[in-house]
Amino acid sequence: MKVAKDPIGVFDSGLGGLTIVKEIRRVLPQESIVYFGDLARLPYGIKSHKQIIQFSLQNTNFLLQHQIKTLIIACNSSSSAAYQVIKRKVSIPVIDVIEPATREAVKLTRTGRIGVIATQATVDTGAYEKKLTKLNPNLEVYSRSCPMFVPMVEEGWTEGSICEQIVKHYLEPIKQKKVDVLMLGCTHYPLLESLIRNFMGSKVRLVNSAQSTVEKLVESLNSQKLLAHPDQKPSFKVYVSDQPRNFIRVGEKFLGERLSYVKVVRHAE
Amino acid sequence: MKVAKDPIGVFDSGLGGLTIVKEIRRVLPQESIVYFGDLARLPYGIKSHKQIIQFSLQNTNFLLQHQIKTLIIACNSSSSAAYQVIKRKVSIPVIDVIEPATREAVKLTRTGRIGVIATQATVDTGAYEKKLTKLNPNLEVYSRSCPMFVPMVEEGWTEGSICEQIVKHYLEPIKQKKVDVLMLGCTHYPLLESLIRNFMGSKVRLVNSAQSTVEKLVESLNSQKLLAHPDQKPSFKVYVSDQPRNFIRVGEKFLGERLSYVKVVRHAE
Repeated sequence: MKVAKDPIGVFDSGLGGLTIVKEIRRVLPQESIVYFGDLARLPYGIKSHKQIIQFSLQNTNFLLQHQIKTLIIACNSSSSAAYQVIKRKVSIPVIDVIEPATREAVKLTRTGRIGVIATQATVDTGAYEKKLTKLNPNLEVYSRSCPMFVPMVEEGWTEGSICEQIVKHYLEPIKQKKVDVLMLGCTHYPLLESLIRNFMGSKVRLVNSAQSTVEKLVESLNSQKLLAHPDQKPSFKVYVSDQPRNFIRVGEKFLGERLSYVKVVRHAE
Repeated sequence: MKVAKDPIGVFDSGLGGLTIVKEIRRVLPQESIVYFGDLARLPYGIKSHKQIIQFSLQNTNFLLQHQIKTLIIACNSSSSAAYQVIKRKVSIPVIDVIEPATREAVKLTRTGRIGVIATQATVDTGAYEKKLTKLNPNLEVYSRSCPMFVPMVEEGWTEGSICEQIVKHYLEPIKQKKVDVLMLGCTHYPLLESLIRNFMGSKVRLVNSAQSTVEKLVESLNSQKLLAHPDQKPSFKVYVSDQPRNFIRVGEKFLGERLSYVKVVRHAE
């Protein structure tokens, strides 16, 4: 039996999911959070669906041991490959990062032309197209994988001439399709938002999943009467399966605050 | 008891180690080879030493089950972090990719100024500097990690203006040090050789580990009388821990020939 003071569980292949945590802490500062980042095996976006499903189930099991009341799959590759499998296996609510963002994109578009950028694994599943066209079969969706974006962010390359050219290389074909909404289908991409905005121009609305995912979280907790009490002193624990050198620097960039509790664990494989 | 017809074992975090296999097949076409690429958990170069050691020992155990007569650690990150540990644990000869290349670099330099480019994990260990200055304490060694090079190669970006600028970004400081030898300290980097050569100029000698590592392999097999008989019909088996989409395309690029026997395995963790 879940209670309001239980934590929310969040996992990602790495640290990108901290962009979701940042939004949870902004909107629901009283909630406790347990985060798991699978740094030992990242990135997921270039690996097979079978492998991503297996890793995602292991991460889910790890978080379930922490008595979480709700699970957020804060990784687009996991959301697209493993959401249905995870949902069938667990008894708590599971929120992915794709479905809420597609609802927002459909609300925002005027022309019905939507662009999606994501990792190769996510693009391969066609998860965004399927969800978008289910909401509105008349939409035109243009997807592109941008394999260099994640390494760029991890390397701290978020501005400058080389980055502008890489952004142009990937986004030019989408810009030519005259989309009016561009979905950032990877939790790393919000850190490239200003580069992407500069290239796409101010008329194209950018949708990242953090805001819409957390809106769905609020609804879900509310409907189950599981929102933490406003006076609760929240805990925030980060577990990772490895601790590379850039970890704190990159993690705090995603999170927008200091990382105080971080523990390296070997989770059951 | 090892015999001449036993295979040579080679492992890498991914497919880059196939550049070593390519050279083995050129020089020792009669030798059988078992290759393991840890695609499920690549890349190693951004992970902790402890993690790299653990992965490397698992890969070694997998190859030992295939009755290998010699082990080649065809990954610079593993060579720098795990070579000593592996050597203590196994009874067959173990060849890393760093030591042979440093001998060649020391032979080639005239000015005593040597550049090393590698992954962050390799640079952090200082393995190249230590081995180079042990051979000649008067050498000046300039190292730099180039985290975008591996994603570039995996994305198939080996020419063009963006690549030239990324190469310039990383190599400019090393060029300014007026090195006369540049060591390519990662098995992926030979695929960027012409870009690197164009930027560094024809007076700088590039050293990649494939040739010197295979020279050491020949010596080692010869001294133990374990060279395969010239008439032997060799087998060549590739095992990987995951099969991403680009696998065949990228693998054949590294290997320079068709990949015929490839099996996805779950090795003991």
